[in-house]
Amino acid sequence: MTAPTANATLDPVLARIDADLPAALDRLMALLRIPSISTDPAHAAACVAAADWLVADLQTLGFDASRRDTAGHPMVVAHAGDSGPHLLFYGHYDVQPVDPLHLWARDPFDPVVEKTPAGEVIRGRGTSDDKGQLMTFVEACRAWKAVHGTLPARITLFFEGEEESGSPSLIPFMRENAAELTADIALICDTGLFDHDTPAITTMLRGLLGEEVTITGPRMDLHSGMYGGAAINPARVLARIIAALHDDSGRVTVPGFYDGVPELSNALRAQWDGLGFDAEAFLHDVGLSVPAGEAGRSVLEMIWARPTCEVNGITGGYTGDGFKTVLPSQARAKISFRLVGQQDPVAIRDSFRAMVRAMLPADCGVSFHGHGTSPASTMSTENPAFDAARAALSAEWPRPAAFVGSGGSIPIAGYFKDILAMDAMLVGFAKDDDLIHSPNEKYDLRSFHKGIRSWARILSALSAN
Amino acid sequence: MTAPTANATLDPVLARIDADLPAALDRLMALLRIPSISTDPAHAAACVAAADWLVADLQTLGFDASRRDTAGHPMVVAHAGDSGPHLLFYGHYDVQPVDPLHLWARDPFDPVVEKTPAGEVIRGRGTSDDKGQLMTFVEACRAWKAVHGTLPARITLFFEGEEESGSPSLIPFMRENAAELTADIALICDTGLFDHDTPAITTMLRGLLGEEVTITGPRMDLHSGMYGGAAINPARVLARIIAALHDDSGRVTVPGFYDGVPELSNALRAQWDGLGFDAEAFLHDVGLSVPAGEAGRSVLEMIWARPTCEVNGITGGYTGDGFKTVLPSQARAKISFRLVGQQDPVAIRDSFRAMVRAMLPADCGVSFHGHGTSPASTMSTENPAFDAARAALSAEWPRPAAFVGSGGSIPIAGYFKDILAMDAMLVGFAKDDDLIHSPNEKYDLRSFHKGIRSWARILSALSAN
Repeated sequence: MTAPTANATLDPVLARIDADLPAALDRLMALLRIPSISTDPAHAAACVAAADWLVADLQTLGFDASRRDTAGHPMVVAHAGDSGPHLLFYGHYDVQPVDPLHLWARDPFDPVVEKTPAGEVIRGRGTSDDKGQLMTFVEACRAWKAVHGTLPARITLFFEGEEESGSPSLIPFMRENAAELTADIALICDTGLFDHDTPAITTMLRGLLGEEVTITGPRMDLHSGMYGGAAINPARVLARIIAALHDDSGRVTVPGFYDGVPELSNALRAQWDGLGFDAEAFLHDVGLSVPAGEAGRSVLEMIWARPTCEVNGITGGYTGDGFKTVLPSQARAKISFRLVGQQDPVAIRDSFRAMVRAMLPADCGVSFHGHGTSPASTMSTENPAFDAARAALSAEWPRPAAFVGSGGSIPIAGYFKDILAMDAMLVGFAKDDDLIHSPNEKYDLRSFHKGIRSWARILSALSAN
Repeated sequence: MTAPTANATLDPVLARIDADLPAALDRLMALLRIPSISTDPAHAAACVAAADWLVADLQTLGFDASRRDTAGHPMVVAHAGDSGPHLLFYGHYDVQPVDPLHLWARDPFDPVVEKTPAGEVIRGRGTSDDKGQLMTFVEACRAWKAVHGTLPARITLFFEGEEESGSPSLIPFMRENAAELTADIALICDTGLFDHDTPAITTMLRGLLGEEVTITGPRMDLHSGMYGGAAINPARVLARIIAALHDDSGRVTVPGFYDGVPELSNALRAQWDGLGFDAEAFLHDVGLSVPAGEAGRSVLEMIWARPTCEVNGITGGYTGDGFKTVLPSQARAKISFRLVGQQDPVAIRDSFRAMVRAMLPADCGVSFHGHGTSPASTMSTENPAFDAARAALSAEWPRPAAFVGSGGSIPIAGYFKDILAMDAMLVGFAKDDDLIHSPNEKYDLRSFHKGIRSWARILSALSAN
C-alpha cells in the first residue's frame, strides 16, 4: 500500500464527513425508526413514510427528488449534478420482518448505538440491510455538496421499497423509466466487506427462485385417532417431498438442476484460496462446525459458486402449546433455490413443480405460489470503473480491496445489465456478523463512517476518469 | 328385535326425559359456553369454572358433589344413591383448542341448535367431545330422581378436566382416592355409535404415545443467501426424519414397533366384516378416496386394530405471509403413535428417540418433550353388565348394539382396570361426522336425546341384575 497523496478536492470532503458523523447518525436513526417491512401488508404505510422521508432529505441536499408510486411500494428517484460521468446509485429502504420478536434484546425499530467489545455498533432492523448502507452514499453526497457547493458527477439515486419481497414493481418501473435511469454505471450498496479490514467489490451473485408449496389432503383437520392409519397426512407427504430434494451427497435432485452450473476457473479458485477465508470461524460464529453442503466443495464455493435448495419455512397442523391429536388437512413449505452461472430459474421452477406433482400420492393436491425468479449474475470487471473503485477502497481500508462472490441474491445487478444495458458495481460495508434477516441486526459504526468516506473516494476516483 | 315390554319403573323415566328435553338442552348450552380448553394455560380459569358449574348442578340433584383440586385442572367427584350396584360414571369437561378459528362458521363457545338436512344438531366446541355425552348420563339421573325420588343404584360421578391434554393428574388422583372411586363397574361416555342407527359398546381402544421433537442447528436464524449451502438446515433434517418413519408399504420403521401387535382373530374379523362398514363413504366424507395406511389391511383394521405414526403438527422458519429467505435455527414436530395390543409405549418412545438421534447429522441437536404414554386396552366382555347394556341399547335404537373397536385413545379405560381393578364399559352416542377436534364440532340432538334415554335403560338393566 502506498502512502496517501494529498488531494485538495477530496481531503476536505473526508474531513467534513468526520466532523458531520454525529449528525449523519441522527439522520440514519430517524430513517431506521420507520418500520418499513415490505413483505407484510400491515406495514405498507410505513414503506410510504420511509420513501417520503428520503425524498424530503434529498430535497434539502438540492436533489430533484420525488416519490414514484407503483402498484406496490413506491420508488424514490432523485437527480443532481450537471457535469462529469453519470452514476446511478441503487439501495433499498425496505427491511425484513422482525419475528421472532422475543429474540430481540430491544425494539427492532428503536435503534441505538451500543458499545461492544468489537467496537460501537448501530443496533436495529435495517441498520445493515439496507438503510445504513444506503445512507453511506447519501452522506458522501451531502459532504461533497457542503464542501464544494456541487457534486463531482451527474448522480441519479434510485431507491426501492420491495427488495425484501421479490421486487415485483422493479422491472416494469425500470422499463417505463429507462431513459431517466440509464447512466454510465450503476453503483449498488447492498453487499459486504470481505472481512473486517478488507473491502470487497462483489462480482458474482447467486440468483433466487422462491416457491411456496401447499399440500392438501382431507378437506378438514381430522382426529388422528378416528382417521389415523386410513387417511393421508399432508405433513408426512410434504416431509417426503422435502427429504427427496437432496441426495445423500447433498446434491439437489430436481431434474436438470445442474444445467448451466459452471465449475470454478482455476484462476478464480486460486484468488479465493488466497483470501485466507476462515471457514471454521465462519461456521463457528453461528454455532456450527461442519460444512453441510455438497461433498467435496469448499465453504466459499458452497456459498458463492454452488446452487442450493433450502426450506425457509414449514408449517402444518397444530403448532401451539401442548398437544392436539389432529391429522392436518394441509401442510405448507417455503422453499428457495440459490442459482449460479447460467441456471434458468423458470426451467428449474417448472422441473421442481413437476417433480412435486409426480410424488403426490392419491387424494393429495398441491398448489404453488411463486415468490420470484431471478438468475445469477456475473459482473463484467473490464469496465475501468472497477479498477478505479478498487484503488479508492484500498486507500480507505487497512487491506486492499478484493473481487469476491456472494451467496445472496441481488437481482437488481442483473436487471441493470439486461434492461438498461449498463454495468453494475456492488460495493458495501456490511459484515458477516451483522445478523441481517435475524433478530438483533446491527451495522458497525465503523462501517457507516468508513463507508461514507469510501463513497467520497469512489466519487472522486470515478469523476477523475 | 322384540317388541318392547312395558316397564313400570323405566317407562315414566323415559317419558320424563322426553318432556324435559328443552330444559336439558338449556343446561348443556350453559356448560358449552364455558371455554374449558385444557391444553392452553390461558384457559385455566375456564376449566375451574366448568368444574364449579358441574358441582353446582349436581348438588341440585342431591349429589354429594365437590370440586377436587389437583396440580392441574380440578376433578369433580359426586356420590348419590344408597342401594343397588355401585356404578362409576366417567366423562370429561375439558375440550380441544379451537384453532383454526377462521374455519368456524360461528363462535365455538356460543352454541346453538341448527336444523340440517340430516336433522337438528347442537353446534359448538365440546358438544360431542365430551360435554354433550357427559350430560346424557347426568340428565338420565335427573329424570330418574324426578320420577322416583331416588336413584336405582349407588352412583359415583367422576369428571376430569385434562383428558384433551394427556390427563397428567388422573393416575395420582385415582391412586389417592382408590377407595372412594372403586365401584362394581365403570361406565365411560366418550365414544360413538357404530352408525346412525347402530349403538356400540367399544371393547378395543388404541393407546397413544405423544412426542414433540425439536431439531436445533445454527444458534440463530441465518440468511439463506449468506449461509445457504454451508450451514445445516434443521427443517430439512426434520423432514428426512419424518420421511424415514414409514416404509413404502406404510409400515412404521421404528425398531421394535410391531412387537406386541396381534393379528385380528378370525372371529373378530368375521364380526367386523358383518358390520357392513362403508369404507368408501367413511373416506369420502372427509374428501378422500383411497385408504392411506398399511398395504393389505382393511380400513376398519387400519383405524381399530393397527398401530400408526402421524405428524400432528410441524413448524420451523418463517411461516407468515410473503417470503423470508431464512435458514431456520430450529424446526419442531408433534408426532403421535396410536398403539394396539401389547405394544409398550415406553419402549417405543425410547426406540423412536434413539432412531431420531441416530439420524442427526453433525451440528444438529435434538430435544424431546413427551406428551404422554398410554397403552392400548381391550375390555373384558365376560362381565354380565356388557350383555345387559347391549340389550338395553338394542331396545332404544333401531338396530342391535355391536361390540366394536375404536381408533381413538381413551386411556382411562385401562386405568380403571390397572389401578382400581374394575372393568370399564364404553358407551357413547357420538357420530363420525361430529367433527370432534375440528372446526364446527356438533352433536346430533338425537344423540343427546336418545343418549339420555339409553342411560336410563342401562341404569334400569344394571340395577335389575
